[in-house]
Amino acid sequence: MRGHALDTALAEGEEGAPVLRELTQVVLDALTEGARERGGPLPCGGPEAVAAQVRRDGSLALPERGTGAVEALSSLVGAMARGAADPADPHCVGHLHCPPLAVAAAAELASAALNPSMDSWDQAPAATVIEEDVTDALAGLVYPRAPRPDALITSGGTESNLVALLLARERARAAGADTLQVVYGANAHHSVHRAAWTLGLPEPMVVECGAGRLEPAALDEALTAYTGAAPVLVVTTAGTTDEGVIDPLPELAEVAARHGAEMHVDAAYGGMLLFSDRHTRQLACLDSAVSVTLDMHKLGWQPVAAGILAVQDTRMLEHLAFEASYLNAGDDTQAGLPDLLHRSIRTTRRPDVLKIAVSLRALGRAGLGDLVDRCVSVAEEFAEAVTHHPDLRLRPGEVGISTVLFRPVAADELPSREGDELVAAVRRKLLTDGQAVLGRAWAVDESGDHRLWLKATLLNPQAGPTDLARVLKLVADAATTTRTTPRTRGEDR
Amino acid sequence: MRGHALDTALAEGEEGAPVLRELTQVVLDALTEGARERGGPLPCGGPEAVAAQVRRDGSLALPERGTGAVEALSSLVGAMARGAADPADPHCVGHLHCPPLAVAAAAELASAALNPSMDSWDQAPAATVIEEDVTDALAGLVYPRAPRPDALITSGGTESNLVALLLARERARAAGADTLQVVYGANAHHSVHRAAWTLGLPEPMVVECGAGRLEPAALDEALTAYTGAAPVLVVTTAGTTDEGVIDPLPELAEVAARHGAEMHVDAAYGGMLLFSDRHTRQLACLDSAVSVTLDMHKLGWQPVAAGILAVQDTRMLEHLAFEASYLNAGDDTQAGLPDLLHRSIRTTRRPDVLKIAVSLRALGRAGLGDLVDRCVSVAEEFAEAVTHHPDLRLRPGEVGISTVLFRPVAADELPSREGDELVAAVRRKLLTDGQAVLGRAWAVDESGDHRLWLKATLLNPQAGPTDLARVLKLVADAATTTRTTPRTRGEDR
Repeated sequence: MRGHALDTALAEGEEGAPVLRELTQVVLDALTEGARERGGPLPCGGPEAVAAQVRRDGSLALPERGTGAVEALSSLVGAMARGAADPADPHCVGHLHCPPLAVAAAAELASAALNPSMDSWDQAPAATVIEEDVTDALAGLVYPRAPRPDALITSGGTESNLVALLLARERARAAGADTLQVVYGANAHHSVHRAAWTLGLPEPMVVECGAGRLEPAALDEALTAYTGAAPVLVVTTAGTTDEGVIDPLPELAEVAARHGAEMHVDAAYGGMLLFSDRHTRQLACLDSAVSVTLDMHKLGWQPVAAGILAVQDTRMLEHLAFEASYLNAGDDTQAGLPDLLHRSIRTTRRPDVLKIAVSLRALGRAGLGDLVDRCVSVAEEFAEAVTHHPDLRLRPGEVGISTVLFRPVAADELPSREGDELVAAVRRKLLTDGQAVLGRAWAVDESGDHRLWLKATLLNPQAGPTDLARVLKLVADAATTTRTTPRTRGEDR
Repeated sequence: MRGHALDTALAEGEEGAPVLRELTQVVLDALTEGARERGGPLPCGGPEAVAAQVRRDGSLALPERGTGAVEALSSLVGAMARGAADPADPHCVGHLHCPPLAVAAAAELASAALNPSMDSWDQAPAATVIEEDVTDALAGLVYPRAPRPDALITSGGTESNLVALLLARERARAAGADTLQVVYGANAHHSVHRAAWTLGLPEPMVVECGAGRLEPAALDEALTAYTGAAPVLVVTTAGTTDEGVIDPLPELAEVAARHGAEMHVDAAYGGMLLFSDRHTRQLACLDSAVSVTLDMHKLGWQPVAAGILAVQDTRMLEHLAFEASYLNAGDDTQAGLPDLLHRSIRTTRRPDVLKIAVSLRALGRAGLGDLVDRCVSVAEEFAEAVTHHPDLRLRPGEVGISTVLFRPVAADELPSREGDELVAAVRRKLLTDGQAVLGRAWAVDESGDHRLWLKATLLNPQAGPTDLARVLKLVADAATTTRTTPRTRGEDR
């Protein structure tokens, strides 16, 4: 198909599939070519160079006349690929930013073409059923003993945590309280604080975490000191962003229960351990939480978004229920049309469930568990390799899930502030040179002091020992170069 | 590639493109076959039959061992396609649920494969630049005279409205107020009320709308009567969900300003009129709003999600700013790494901007404006056809954007309640028989009474006169059948 007809062709219907066949070839060619031009985990040169590269043919975000479907796909997909930080590259270990499975990415094409919207049955007849089955299965995995568990699909851990707090606020209100008091550890993800702010809740109580972990004694002390009238929701973490630490859930659940508080677990990172025979025991007592955040776009190899909020009892979701007569009129519901509005805080909603469903079915519980195990092993190998590297030092303590903290020995040889600056500069140098994406995290050293560490979050089950050794060499070399290059404070060159 | 290697292959990297090539063929075949098996705008039989069809090989949402990538894609994409409500079918006109452009759907494949996350530069180097250009262009379209307009990409109109209210609440707080008073017309989308609830704001003041439109005099009266201390945000609508009505923005802006209130416009549906030479004048004074909701997954032919929130001044977004040291540490920002956390209430965020960017570039302002004009024309033709149909009656008044309300004459011949029930039953019959997806809306008749109407939301620029005539015939026939079939109240059979 040529010209205007191709540009305005719809994705579905009779003409849809052949047009999509043609256009996806353009996309795949642009992806291949873009990756080749990039030639590494991320583009070289830093933000300004990347911006110039993207805009090399001028910023034509909204031209008066179009350039056509093929040109637009080719140029923009090409630009995005040339300038991508590729999570499938073993040197790209900076964040909880996973390389997606090809099978999941392919499913996204179907979601886009069929475009069901999950807010009413008559926009998503079959997608609704798939979502019901998948959320039932995931809820059952989190709450194997609960009679009526349920789960929602969300846009990510941030939305899951927001909805968890919203539901807790509404339970508190339904019980006659004015508001809800949120209590969390200093190791919690920032989205918990942000959710409390968004929801108009009082300032949360933050419990200090000496070693990156919420300690039961510290929680006990905080809850004992609390004299407010509002019911308390304790938010704990299974897999912190900085260190991959899993809070001691059984003990924390016991403390919370003793104080009459509910517990929510943010298991955005660690929740996938449920799939692993070897590691599931790290999540013992997860089901004592009223709600649990999971996120399959972290350790789950899904393209964003693939968030989940599991709740202990489906009746907890009643607080989200409302009627909008164009979507779930009472007589339609009575006549058997499903009412879906209590399944999200969004209205129109893409079928993120499809890629999850396809991945669960393609790999099964055991197959996904294997991938989890491989990432944990890769992290252990990485940590082991750091300990054997003369110029690098592993942070003392256990590897949290698949997160490894380390720093150049050179940083330890400097006064503490300069040492931390060196760590930050090494990270930025590797980014600017297009060599590696590493993360950064403040965490305590054996002395109890907070230090800045390089963070490797290993989510690529296919990374091998050679890949890892190369990352370590890059870091060591960058530390040498950065240290010997004259630099102004706060800048790496 | 075969077996296990294919199942666990990653979407990017060296092996990515060939695997995606193989798997997208499976997807496209399943889409084609599913559409053929469905053979109409939606599957037959209603919710139970569709559920049985999806589960015909058993509910295997989470098997212990996987079935492999090809089987999983083939079976689940097939099931979703067989059981889809296809917005590209001209008989599918129930909702603001658009048929996506093939070019936009193809772009989604690249987004899924590259999987950039928009919360930090080092997860999305080039995608960040594309988002900046597109949001600048869209902000400039909404606010052509503002010196520093800006726009955020959101998950849809619901999130846009939520963020608009959140920003207004924070402006109120920054000015020393305790809270914000939201005032809106009864014609506003339910998400405005839900946002106020989510944010912990006081119960909004709802201004009655006699004829589906927020009248300046009624707003003036409400604001005059308001004696509270909290600053007021007036929410108006450009394109109501039920009737496609555009509130009289210039007059409402004047009333709001006279009372010292700010105005937000929910133009989720109507905002795309900005692209049209013929219809842009309906949005005169849009830029007197502090913020504007747009939604390109409605009249914009994007797969969900493609929401936008435009703001008059980029400094308004400072209220979303915060620091999370792993994403936007101060020294990284100082060294030139962009800080993106004030661009969303989400953290991890998919690059919904890519498909928008590709569509804007492929079609240009004029090309998208043409599609808008065609949808408006299709709606006018549909309305015209209704007036000539002996068994159907058009709702008196103008066609709102591309929304047409009508009902069978047979419904008018019944007592009002039974007439409304007939309308609802006709809609359900067409759904159950898999013949058409029509919407429903309560709206006033010439008598001033509220009646239930069938709603056609015409978002398919390729629908022609023959398609529309067929929809009308289906409705007329269904009204005859439904009326003569014995039925219990509230059920259609």
